[in-house]
Amino acid sequence: MKQIDSPKNDTIKEIIKLKQTKYQNRQQQYLLEGRHEISEAIQSKAPIQQLLVTETQILPYLKYAADFELIQISAQVSQHLSATKTNQGVFAVMQITDTALPKQLSGAWLLLDDLQDPGNVGTMVRTADAAGFAGVILGEKTVSIYNDKVLRAMQGSQFHLPIYKGNLTEAVAQCQQQGLSVFGTALDPQAKNYQTVTPLKDFGLVIGNEGNGVRPEILAQTDENLYIPILGKAESLNAGVAAGILMFYLHQ
Amino acid sequence: MKQIDSPKNDTIKEIIKLKQTKYQNRQQQYLLEGRHEISEAIQSKAPIQQLLVTETQILPYLKYAADFELIQISAQVSQHLSATKTNQGVFAVMQITDTALPKQLSGAWLLLDDLQDPGNVGTMVRTADAAGFAGVILGEKTVSIYNDKVLRAMQGSQFHLPIYKGNLTEAVAQCQQQGLSVFGTALDPQAKNYQTVTPLKDFGLVIGNEGNGVRPEILAQTDENLYIPILGKAESLNAGVAAGILMFYLHQ
Repeated sequence: MKQIDSPKNDTIKEIIKLKQTKYQNRQQQYLLEGRHEISEAIQSKAPIQQLLVTETQILPYLKYAADFELIQISAQVSQHLSATKTNQGVFAVMQITDTALPKQLSGAWLLLDDLQDPGNVGTMVRTADAAGFAGVILGEKTVSIYNDKVLRAMQGSQFHLPIYKGNLTEAVAQCQQQGLSVFGTALDPQAKNYQTVTPLKDFGLVIGNEGNGVRPEILAQTDENLYIPILGKAESLNAGVAAGILMFYLHQ
Repeated sequence: MKQIDSPKNDTIKEIIKLKQTKYQNRQQQYLLEGRHEISEAIQSKAPIQQLLVTETQILPYLKYAADFELIQISAQVSQHLSATKTNQGVFAVMQITDTALPKQLSGAWLLLDDLQDPGNVGTMVRTADAAGFAGVILGEKTVSIYNDKVLRAMQGSQFHLPIYKGNLTEAVAQCQQQGLSVFGTALDPQAKNYQTVTPLKDFGLVIGNEGNGVRPEILAQTDENLYIPILGKAESLNAGVAAGILMFYLHQ
């Protein structure tokens, strides 16, 4: 088994570059961190290219030495790889396998229009997973799911449901062509109270940017636009919470 | 109007100490930051003791010079006061007015048992506000709402609904004595699916620690314990999202 003690090692320097979107796109790889996340990747047979583990954590990973390139790293290397102050000493270089949206769509789909907060995006993907959604479609301007904060908030849900990136107008049109009702979301009380919708199996739900909401051209394209009535004095809900309320309410 | 340009000024040094819980408790004051938050404080006639604003932001605050001590601060002082990298240059020293739980309770109450993540706590208070809850009760071990991350996530909801701190066992008992059903929450599918509960007006909802859930002694005390069925492969929901789904579902 390979052992790397110095953060200046060339392999490590290349891996650290994978924290940047530019290198993720170029290499079609991203860096995954955390025991839970990597155990989800292994269970889901996701394409792990390298497994990097500190000496104190390596025992349970030795059995994978035949399946993946297993590298034992020092605590110092672990600190350099980690996006957090305290790290678990378990990392993987993952292959990115971007695929086109399937031609047949069914079930519930979450569509994210220009979401910028990584924690929100990760939480929404995790919630879509928990709510039994079929998949997630990210509009072009939505933050990359390989951002370390998105990865942390997703808690491995990227291995449970497909996540596509693409043109949202086209994705909405494709949903509709295949008989899925598409719901936009709006703060505007002129939209429809979500509680008046009968829960259903096949649909799309579009969540918009934290500050600006769903773009008007998308709202014009959807079948209905929903809002969550605010009963108290708060101006709005956190975007992740609002998305969770709608996903769990709408999905039959 | 007083003007302070140096972060080493004694008044500023005292105010910076208010970022620490120890000094908040000692002085019964906390530091609030942000245009939106301070506008909520002003509208709610909350006890502002000092208003500190940078020169470029001061114009709309001049009209309050008769009501509060208004101090013009330099950009450098603003950077020292702020908990964020980019700040809006608007701060207030607020008086803490802790009060005992009222003897009469009605409406919906959110009870937080040992919640540790500041973002989660702030988001839950904001959601309780949006869902029209009557108030929030924080168990003794729950993170302080005067933590800067809680304050940021609350977005001023502390001025919209009362937030009490106290013994959670006693609070649950008091809710029950006054006829409020109290619901615990559990990951355990042996608890009751929340969707089988008929939405109601007067109740308590207990949310537990992010990792450990609600303490067993509290779960034994509640009228019912609820869980949110996970339909996909995610292990759990984000605590703030789970609390939001339950609050919006249960509150009639």
